[in-house]
Amino acid sequence: MIYFDNASTTKYKPEEVYKAFEYYVREIGVSPGRGSYQLGIEASRMLFKTRKKVAEYFGLSSNNVIFTKNSTEAINLFFNGFLKQGDHAIISCYEHNAVLRPLHQLKLARIIDYSVVSREDLELKPKEIYEKYVKENTVLFATTLASNLTGRIVFSSDIMEFMKNKGLTTFVDASQGAGKIRLAMTEQNIDYLTFTGHKDLMALPGVGGLCCVKQPSWKPLIQGGTGVLGDSYVNPDVFPEEYEAGTLNMPAIWSLKSALEVCTERFEENKKIESELMNYLLDKLNGLEHVIVYDLDYKRVNTVGFNLMNRKSNEVVEFLDRCGICTRGGIHCAILAHEALGTKESGVVRISMSAFNKKEEIDTLIRYLEDCR
Amino acid sequence: MIYFDNASTTKYKPEEVYKAFEYYVREIGVSPGRGSYQLGIEASRMLFKTRKKVAEYFGLSSNNVIFTKNSTEAINLFFNGFLKQGDHAIISCYEHNAVLRPLHQLKLARIIDYSVVSREDLELKPKEIYEKYVKENTVLFATTLASNLTGRIVFSSDIMEFMKNKGLTTFVDASQGAGKIRLAMTEQNIDYLTFTGHKDLMALPGVGGLCCVKQPSWKPLIQGGTGVLGDSYVNPDVFPEEYEAGTLNMPAIWSLKSALEVCTERFEENKKIESELMNYLLDKLNGLEHVIVYDLDYKRVNTVGFNLMNRKSNEVVEFLDRCGICTRGGIHCAILAHEALGTKESGVVRISMSAFNKKEEIDTLIRYLEDCR
Repeated sequence: MIYFDNASTTKYKPEEVYKAFEYYVREIGVSPGRGSYQLGIEASRMLFKTRKKVAEYFGLSSNNVIFTKNSTEAINLFFNGFLKQGDHAIISCYEHNAVLRPLHQLKLARIIDYSVVSREDLELKPKEIYEKYVKENTVLFATTLASNLTGRIVFSSDIMEFMKNKGLTTFVDASQGAGKIRLAMTEQNIDYLTFTGHKDLMALPGVGGLCCVKQPSWKPLIQGGTGVLGDSYVNPDVFPEEYEAGTLNMPAIWSLKSALEVCTERFEENKKIESELMNYLLDKLNGLEHVIVYDLDYKRVNTVGFNLMNRKSNEVVEFLDRCGICTRGGIHCAILAHEALGTKESGVVRISMSAFNKKEEIDTLIRYLEDCR
Repeated sequence: MIYFDNASTTKYKPEEVYKAFEYYVREIGVSPGRGSYQLGIEASRMLFKTRKKVAEYFGLSSNNVIFTKNSTEAINLFFNGFLKQGDHAIISCYEHNAVLRPLHQLKLARIIDYSVVSREDLELKPKEIYEKYVKENTVLFATTLASNLTGRIVFSSDIMEFMKNKGLTTFVDASQGAGKIRLAMTEQNIDYLTFTGHKDLMALPGVGGLCCVKQPSWKPLIQGGTGVLGDSYVNPDVFPEEYEAGTLNMPAIWSLKSALEVCTERFEENKKIESELMNYLLDKLNGLEHVIVYDLDYKRVNTVGFNLMNRKSNEVVEFLDRCGICTRGGIHCAILAHEALGTKESGVVRISMSAFNKKEEIDTLIRYLEDCR
């Protein structure tokens, strides 16, 4: 089996990650912040170490990291907490539905409004984007790090800097690309950032989070037991516990610590492997005249979206599945990007790679695509 | 080390649960509902099988189960979705903060109001409780299955039946006791039930859920990618996907399937072990004249709350920790129960057992408690 759906979930993880996970499950096994016995304190220490590691990884000078179950929860927490009645937000046309839908829900509830920067306008200078999209009530500029559909890197330090200087709050959804592009939140003017563990950070599923340059003061998404100040009738005003009610998924959290260590240690090595794979794939795809590659000319992460002429994406995906190749077709929870690319009807075939992929797998893919006309 | 904090998290799981978890992580490793390739379909099948198993376990005739990260999220989803402006809810004084806090937050936002059935009034006949607490705008009667503080079984089939017949919606938080007491939702007039995997159901952390006799029609807590109908600007009206946006924690979900199988197969066997342990412990504690046991005369799950005269609970817990015994003191995220018992200042020492505990461990505990005056 050839696995090319790493933008959904990286199937293969570094052995260290499996080991960390299994260690937590079999040797620790208790919840942090619940019991004051030694093993509970060790669990709390492991939670703290992971929080610190995440903060370091994303270039935060504090440990302002809130753990959630995935980036979707983190994004909902952020939008529902940060945005207030009458606010206006700006997003890019490459946002995942995890960004679009909570915003649109807030719009339907007549709480906020939002605008979408078009594919063409993302080429404009920051000042031009500002002048075209920012309104009197705009408070937030939000962008994905990279498109989950085409792999295009959408995040721009220059835009962030401009918006930040103009007084807007800035947000990056780093669900795609966090393991491939190193961000430094403070330096790069990113106020808030969400991530998920199970994609290219290479951790196990069940952990994501919200990183914050400044500790938030808005309401949490979930009320419940926090392990601290249990006598309060609502979540206590203690960071980060206020935002982490309920039992945390420590096995996944501990796997994330290990995963980030691996991402850091092997960053250059993996980047080299992945760039070579991606260049090889793009080159080969380009050589097939019945293939249309989207966003070909942009800088990208290890994802490429394409179609075969006169074929719906899902037909191609099913054909490839019969050949033992796992890819993904359809909408990819990114409707805005399809509207921008004009691929709403056909969907898009997506190949997303990790450093575990091999050139020979690309050769196999291309051989089958040649036959698929 | 002696582990007596199973009401926080069961540290030791059946080997089958570890194995299921590791199998998913190492052999499957992909997300359900994302790719249409064979392995993705297998993941979806495993998700379906677990959903079916949960439904069976809680006596649902449909598969109306929504997976969340823990019971806290499930409770927030339920209250925030089900309750409408102007509604009134009734809860017991034994509710965990996971029930109290989302309700109290809704009260602070002037959306709903709620009343708390006192410890004494829980002894009343259903009709008397109804007459004393139900108002014109009461829509919900909610109760915990068992107290996380004292172990007392709070759920009563008779009360549920009465409230249901009177037209109220009924809800049970089964976070404590779900593995020890078999519930049959349809037969026992329970409209909604929340559970968590990592306590006495013996699954891994990171999965909980909301079981529903009828599919809900209210808004989800979290908006985002659902893997279906990706072209909709908000979560599509498809059950259960509408309520499960974002990547599911499949390793924990698959461990839950295995855990429920074990719970079912070894139900009588484990119940016998645990009852014997609990009777032995209660008998021994009763023999210590400087010990006050709370809710001694009630039917209980494998949890007991007590105090030593003139000692704060946390002093005792720290002393026991130095003796290698893990217990929990303080408030246990159950402030209402402490108010009812008059233990807000001292907290309560909690011993919570599983079938992995041994009589000799209880002997050791008692020996140390004898010395702790």
